[in-house]
Amino acid sequence: MNAKSGTPKKHLMLFSGRAHPELAEEVARELKVEITPQAAYDFANGEIFVRFNESVRGTDAFVIQAHTSPINQWIMEQLLMVDALKRASAKRITVIMPFYGYARQDKKHKGREPISARLIADMFKTAGADRIMTVDLHTAQIQGFFDGPVDHLFAQSLLAEHVAKTYGSSDITVVSPDSGRVRLAEKWATQLGDRPIAFIHKTRDPLKPNEAVANRVVGEVSGRLCVLVDDMIDTGGTIVKACDALIEGGASDVVIAATHGILSDPASERLANCKAREVIFTNTLPIPEEKRFPGMTVLSIAPLLARAIQEVFEDGSVTSLFDGNA
Amino acid sequence: MNAKSGTPKKHLMLFSGRAHPELAEEVARELKVEITPQAAYDFANGEIFVRFNESVRGTDAFVIQAHTSPINQWIMEQLLMVDALKRASAKRITVIMPFYGYARQDKKHKGREPISARLIADMFKTAGADRIMTVDLHTAQIQGFFDGPVDHLFAQSLLAEHVAKTYGSSDITVVSPDSGRVRLAEKWATQLGDRPIAFIHKTRDPLKPNEAVANRVVGEVSGRLCVLVDDMIDTGGTIVKACDALIEGGASDVVIAATHGILSDPASERLANCKAREVIFTNTLPIPEEKRFPGMTVLSIAPLLARAIQEVFEDGSVTSLFDGNA
Amino acid sequence: MNAKSGTPKKHLMLFSGRAHPELAEEVARELKVEITPQAAYDFANGEIFVRFNESVRGTDAFVIQAHTSPINQWIMEQLLMVDALKRASAKRITVIMPFYGYARQDKKHKGREPISARLIADMFKTAGADRIMTVDLHTAQIQGFFDGPVDHLFAQSLLAEHVAKTYGSSDITVVSPDSGRVRLAEKWATQLGDRPIAFIHKTRDPLKPNEAVANRVVGEVSGRLCVLVDDMIDTGGTIVKACDALIEGGASDVVIAATHGILSDPASERLANCKAREVIFTNTLPIPEEKRFPGMTVLSIAPLLARAIQEVFEDGSVTSLFDGNA
Amino acid sequence: MNAKSGTPKKHLMLFSGRAHPELAEEVARELKVEITPQAAYDFANGEIFVRFNESVRGTDAFVIQAHTSPINQWIMEQLLMVDALKRASAKRITVIMPFYGYARQDKKHKGREPISARLIADMFKTAGADRIMTVDLHTAQIQGFFDGPVDHLFAQSLLAEHVAKTYGSSDITVVSPDSGRVRLAEKWATQLGDRPIAFIHKTRDPLKPNEAVANRVVGEVSGRLCVLVDDMIDTGGTIVKACDALIEGGASDVVIAATHGILSDPASERLANCKAREVIFTNTLPIPEEKRFPGMTVLSIAPLLARAIQEVFEDGSVTSLFDGNA
Amino acid sequence: MNAKSGTPKKHLMLFSGRAHPELAEEVARELKVEITPQAAYDFANGEIFVRFNESVRGTDAFVIQAHTSPINQWIMEQLLMVDALKRASAKRITVIMPFYGYARQDKKHKGREPISARLIADMFKTAGADRIMTVDLHTAQIQGFFDGPVDHLFAQSLLAEHVAKTYGSSDITVVSPDSGRVRLAEKWATQLGDRPIAFIHKTRDPLKPNEAVANRVVGEVSGRLCVLVDDMIDTGGTIVKACDALIEGGASDVVIAATHGILSDPASERLANCKAREVIFTNTLPIPEEKRFPGMTVLSIAPLLARAIQEVFEDGSVTSLFDGNA
Amino acid sequence: MNAKSGTPKKHLMLFSGRAHPELAEEVARELKVEITPQAAYDFANGEIFVRFNESVRGTDAFVIQAHTSPINQWIMEQLLMVDALKRASAKRITVIMPFYGYARQDKKHKGREPISARLIADMFKTAGADRIMTVDLHTAQIQGFFDGPVDHLFAQSLLAEHVAKTYGSSDITVVSPDSGRVRLAEKWATQLGDRPIAFIHKTRDPLKPNEAVANRVVGEVSGRLCVLVDDMIDTGGTIVKACDALIEGGASDVVIAATHGILSDPASERLANCKAREVIFTNTLPIPEEKRFPGMTVLSIAPLLARAIQEVFEDGSVTSLFDGNA
Repeated sequence: MNAKSGTPKKHLMLFSGRAHPELAEEVARELKVEITPQAAYDFANGEIFVRFNESVRGTDAFVIQAHTSPINQWIMEQLLMVDALKRASAKRITVIMPFYGYARQDKKHKGREPISARLIADMFKTAGADRIMTVDLHTAQIQGFFDGPVDHLFAQSLLAEHVAKTYGSSDITVVSPDSGRVRLAEKWATQLGDRPIAFIHKTRDPLKPNEAVANRVVGEVSGRLCVLVDDMIDTGGTIVKACDALIEGGASDVVIAATHGILSDPASERLANCKAREVIFTNTLPIPEEKRFPGMTVLSIAPLLARAIQEVFEDGSVTSLFDGNA
Repeated sequence: MNAKSGTPKKHLMLFSGRAHPELAEEVARELKVEITPQAAYDFANGEIFVRFNESVRGTDAFVIQAHTSPINQWIMEQLLMVDALKRASAKRITVIMPFYGYARQDKKHKGREPISARLIADMFKTAGADRIMTVDLHTAQIQGFFDGPVDHLFAQSLLAEHVAKTYGSSDITVVSPDSGRVRLAEKWATQLGDRPIAFIHKTRDPLKPNEAVANRVVGEVSGRLCVLVDDMIDTGGTIVKACDALIEGGASDVVIAATHGILSDPASERLANCKAREVIFTNTLPIPEEKRFPGMTVLSIAPLLARAIQEVFEDGSVTSLFDGNA
Repeated sequence: MNAKSGTPKKHLMLFSGRAHPELAEEVARELKVEITPQAAYDFANGEIFVRFNESVRGTDAFVIQAHTSPINQWIMEQLLMVDALKRASAKRITVIMPFYGYARQDKKHKGREPISARLIADMFKTAGADRIMTVDLHTAQIQGFFDGPVDHLFAQSLLAEHVAKTYGSSDITVVSPDSGRVRLAEKWATQLGDRPIAFIHKTRDPLKPNEAVANRVVGEVSGRLCVLVDDMIDTGGTIVKACDALIEGGASDVVIAATHGILSDPASERLANCKAREVIFTNTLPIPEEKRFPGMTVLSIAPLLARAIQEVFEDGSVTSLFDGNA
Repeated sequence: MNAKSGTPKKHLMLFSGRAHPELAEEVARELKVEITPQAAYDFANGEIFVRFNESVRGTDAFVIQAHTSPINQWIMEQLLMVDALKRASAKRITVIMPFYGYARQDKKHKGREPISARLIADMFKTAGADRIMTVDLHTAQIQGFFDGPVDHLFAQSLLAEHVAKTYGSSDITVVSPDSGRVRLAEKWATQLGDRPIAFIHKTRDPLKPNEAVANRVVGEVSGRLCVLVDDMIDTGGTIVKACDALIEGGASDVVIAATHGILSDPASERLANCKAREVIFTNTLPIPEEKRFPGMTVLSIAPLLARAIQEVFEDGSVTSLFDGNA
Repeated sequence: MNAKSGTPKKHLMLFSGRAHPELAEEVARELKVEITPQAAYDFANGEIFVRFNESVRGTDAFVIQAHTSPINQWIMEQLLMVDALKRASAKRITVIMPFYGYARQDKKHKGREPISARLIADMFKTAGADRIMTVDLHTAQIQGFFDGPVDHLFAQSLLAEHVAKTYGSSDITVVSPDSGRVRLAEKWATQLGDRPIAFIHKTRDPLKPNEAVANRVVGEVSGRLCVLVDDMIDTGGTIVKACDALIEGGASDVVIAATHGILSDPASERLANCKAREVIFTNTLPIPEEKRFPGMTVLSIAPLLARAIQEVFEDGSVTSLFDGNA
Repeated sequence: MNAKSGTPKKHLMLFSGRAHPELAEEVARELKVEITPQAAYDFANGEIFVRFNESVRGTDAFVIQAHTSPINQWIMEQLLMVDALKRASAKRITVIMPFYGYARQDKKHKGREPISARLIADMFKTAGADRIMTVDLHTAQIQGFFDGPVDHLFAQSLLAEHVAKTYGSSDITVVSPDSGRVRLAEKWATQLGDRPIAFIHKTRDPLKPNEAVANRVVGEVSGRLCVLVDDMIDTGGTIVKACDALIEGGASDVVIAATHGILSDPASERLANCKAREVIFTNTLPIPEEKRFPGMTVLSIAPLLARAIQEVFEDGSVTSLFDGNA
């Protein structure tokens, strides 16, 4: 007999970088696996070292890392993990970045800039990633930056469900904090049941194009509960000014909802002190205790990630989790 | 002596596909070169044949083609021209597609769709393109689909200058025909001197999410000259409904401006019969006589393309043509 | 426990472009599967849209498309289908092109031409194809244009079997219509039992190298049944002139056999009116009713395709279907 | 001042492997350059070492090597030279292989064979080759195996000119030694002024398909001077049998012409003893003294190579050397 | 039903080049498989032909070849085997090169040299190799030359175990024959139980940097059994001089151990005549009868290769065979 | 006239990351250019933004960055600069990393580790680097990790010249701090005029292989000035222990020399307090004031970098700066 035969097995293994271990552990619990034990530490000059403590040969590897501050550190760690998996003969490598780092630099705003979000995609490809799983991309076009499958999960529905349950009976206007997120507001408006939408028009002096002169509310907000929606909140400047403009414009109340709570300083302080009744995030990025405040709600995306991982492992359908949207 | 030395020369040559020879010739006149003569024809089964009649070795080649209907035919012709140039030792190949075909499919709207705009970028790369030059991309992120330099030219300013000159003294509101182009309207508003903006909110029944129930105007339009802006007009359905909604909403007049006049049937008829006072396009795509009507204005982008080609050839700056924007 | 284990499954799914659905359906019936339902349509400007209606994750995908007129349209559709499958996580993608488009441009005939057949191979690789399955390539070297497995099926034997059964008792001479297909004629001659061969020598005036001056028959044809063989018939000019030359040279009868019936106008008319007793094709390309005529025979390659697909899916041997030839 | 400027220079440097230094030196003399000095030797276990003795940074490098026996040795040497040039910052690397090794394995003849000619192209690409220059490829499709420019030179015209000058006044029939080279014979027939052509039909027993049963001459040869043409002669078996068949068929005389004289044993003995009046080769491969015999003529391709190199260096036209053919 | 389903099987097949069939057969016996039958021969001009006699579709292929003299011949054969496997749809291709050819040229020693070991890695990648398995690389960094998994097996432990068993009770000093292998000597010293180490310092005249002036022993060797260790022995010059220096330095006895016995002439003669008591190799390279001598011991690596292949096939752990080292 | 002609110009532009601007400025002064002005800053979450303020089209770009702590930050910045240059049409991009980050992870020490140094090379290639310039690589094999030219500069000669000048008349022994750098010590010994060498043997308990039991000096050091040489010093633990062992072993004095002063805490304190008379570094990495101490000497590599850049720009020879070594 010339050949030796057998039946292949497949194995799902979960790997976690050091940026946000709590989320990875929550996902692991949902999946009923354990995170693969590894050594990972920084040399004194900042170089990162990783080694997995168990054989990963032939495995279906899922590598989860939060792209949070210090973001270059954590991206590099995830790249090194992927390289190690590739060289250790993992069968398939899915990179999970609940928040896609550098997503905002998805185009050149002016000449001689990088397109950093494409570079991120290419670097993971180079390191050995077969697939990317991510949540609520800044722009959906980023999917096209990766030469392979991208499982794009939607957490905005999670946020919208929470808002519908809590405030569904109010007179809601969905508000985009600037002219670039009106489409997102429109989606919310439809999901919440054909609500009106509005947005903040930042007027600029044509002679000083980068300076906003004023925030004009366009749309009907007076006497209404305004739900300000965005994909991420970084320093919180824009969203808080939008909140102020809405209150000034007669809004009865404001609720803020965004998937990614980057919350660079002084975001937490600004949000805690603004006039919004509630600020809602998911835990795609870690939100440490000291950045939390009474009106903040954090919804977990771990169940969503776990279901998507399960579908990928079993060759099921991820888009079925979102009524076919991708 | 071991080596034979010399001083290199560089040569700009212009190549044109068969889709829109008038534009290529206009560009050639601006550049004071002639279009390189070539044989190009279709076999009876639709296969395209191309051959250049002069040596192209070492040349800095610029290959212009309009991605107009039948679009797959013309894209394939341009790919074959690039392949022929690569194999004939052109030094550098710049693909000029004033309108970038398949730009609207720049993401998966639902699961199991292609990202056609990325495929287009990859196919030109595979064929041998070193660089892409294009005008007013549907989304700027498409620049990131190509692994190399993309010279992104702006023709919206051209349109805006025309509007400013013609209607500058009116009470203008800049209007986006849907929730996805409000950012563009904001740019126009700034360029026209801090004008108000508005948009059309397509409300949907959440149970039938793909069907628009009504077009609500959000923003102040009553008694004002509304300038409806978009990057392209295909069948004209959306823009004409937006025009109707504005007139219904009390607009004193409507002007429509878009870079790319795809004008698939029945766009011309719809536009000719709608209540807009003027409809303005550029000639990135050919607009044949039979699709023209009295209120239509077509501005030429040939001078812009020629200047950009000249800058590329001379290692000058393309973004300098647009105040640094890219 | 660190890993979640399972036994992988494999799934064969069949996909069909819109160029020749009848062949795909015939293959599906042979395989006892159904063609995966999809949305596929053209936008008004000719851009193609495709979406699969069922999850394709992890599938062994076979994508069948006829490269028939309008050929660039159908090639692009197949490329988009492959891209969609890649991004939707198909495990393996086999592109089935019964007739390989642009196969005739498999070399530069003169300087500054493309090698279109290589470009086709590279574009399918770029889109995500793992493997190509095709029938009777114009030249076998085209296999080498694709960086991966090419399953090259032979339909000439099908044609030869038909001829052997129908005319086996006659005095057959196998004839190549020009100097480039004599090898093919030799193969037929062997398969039909050591028959003589002949070919048509197109003499040319050396001062006008592209113009044929006369068609000389080289070889013994007088009083014999001549079987004119080729891989494809496009406009039919060459083959009909060859038929005339044979009749003039004293052939008792002529039978024409070719795998691919491209049949661009006026091929059908020419063939219907020529002196050949029978003209035999396969259905690698659709031959619509209006192109058929009484003396035409069309053999189906669906059983052959289905057996090859089955072998690929089950990791069997495709060359075993052809006595080891490839 | 931010930038330091200068005018680029270009330098042609010629490099030669050890397989056929005489040809390289002849080319160098034609070009009036010297071959770049280098160290090149074999370690005792056969590993090859190369190092160039002069800086090659920024050079336009032409690397000439004969793919003669021991062919794997010389191919590897050329690959290593290309790698060294790439890593030493040569600006452009043109690989000159007057005979393209492994050209005969340009397709799979049966299942589970390599396509060696494609592998050769890919390996040179991998090593760093920008371009290939070669002479009279076994099949022109091999050009398409390389992803870049291939300068394909024709030496058959050289041979034909020699035949025209020497035997032009005779009654010539051009003969292909088998069914696969009839197209080549047709080209000769045209160049020699509309001469008749013939070929040798190797009949086979269909039950033993790989064994030739007889060599039948197809075409008119009786009383004529037969010119047997081929691209290469390896062991000489086929061509000498063809010569015998022609003499038997009444040919008055036979002349043999082929570009590449591989001349593996016992080719020289066979050819010296056959009934051909003259056997003509070029020196694309070295033909050592001991393989030469009185009736052999060897034409030099060095002038042709030198002119092509000069055209490439100066961005001229190579196809212009061949009336536009490629 | 849209899809046809099944359970995948996996098949291990072993392929052997012609360089060292005995080792491949020994591995096959250990694995209880047979070597896949194939045709492999050289054409008269040295071109290699290979074809596998059985279907390899979907197989997990292991291709073993010794990189022994004539090394370029055998490397090319292995590349062609890989290409044939890729084109015949093997599922995964592992290249086994017990001795990695060209490993010594793993860097540029001077300017304008190739990095041949990287070229080897890239050529196997280009041909289609998914993975490399090799033994005792000249430098471990070569692993990084391949873009994929490298299973690096250690045979030095095998040698050390043999020495420990045979000479464990002596006063051993482990000696590196030059300054570049001291780290290796240190590893041996640890494995043999904290033994002292020494090395040979080749002093050089700074004016003639490539000529060794003298071999100085650094470290304690007087009256001790010196074990000279290296990864390979080629012509034996260095190691025999080191042996002489040790004897001169008062060593009581010398044992030589190296994994790879390249043994180019006059290595065997030198070693047979030197003062070493025993010379130990493995059979990573064939050592023919005529190169053997009484004091030579050859240990088989076949069991080690077989276990590693088994682990790869079953997705087990290869590093577990070496206590986690890689 | 079909083509527009001109004479190309070339322009050298220097770009500097933010990690070590002093070195870049010193290089700029040597070259008599100015560093190209740019915007570069961190967003609050650590994402880096860069934009060049002048056109870089067609430029020969040299991008200098120190891979110092926080190293992942600075590597990412350099990658983004390269991406921006590629997309802005720089003609050629040379990445200058005087210290190559992650060079120590140039192989897998144990299973399931990354080969980080290869990943670094690949990421720069992916971003768009054409060439790498670096100084004293940890192992020379790293050159082979990059698929393109690597200009490898040697600063060890600089250090050795300083030692020769200062201590040349003493009885010097060159000492490697461990078994892996003995080759380097040998080079020094030759350059300093045939000096003896020694090294530190770290003995290990075979049962606890990762713990050093003792540091044994192997070689003659008593009463001699020991020059401890290494490529880099990170935390200083090994080198200071080596220094102690030498003093204990009777060395009259110790001098420490290394190219790269990483100097992670507590290296400076350790070195300041150890018994070495002088500690010599170069400024490949920034050494801030607070890490300096009286016995430290820092030599500048700026002149060396500037000369190498000049040679690259002018297509001169870099290896000529080092007597042909690479």
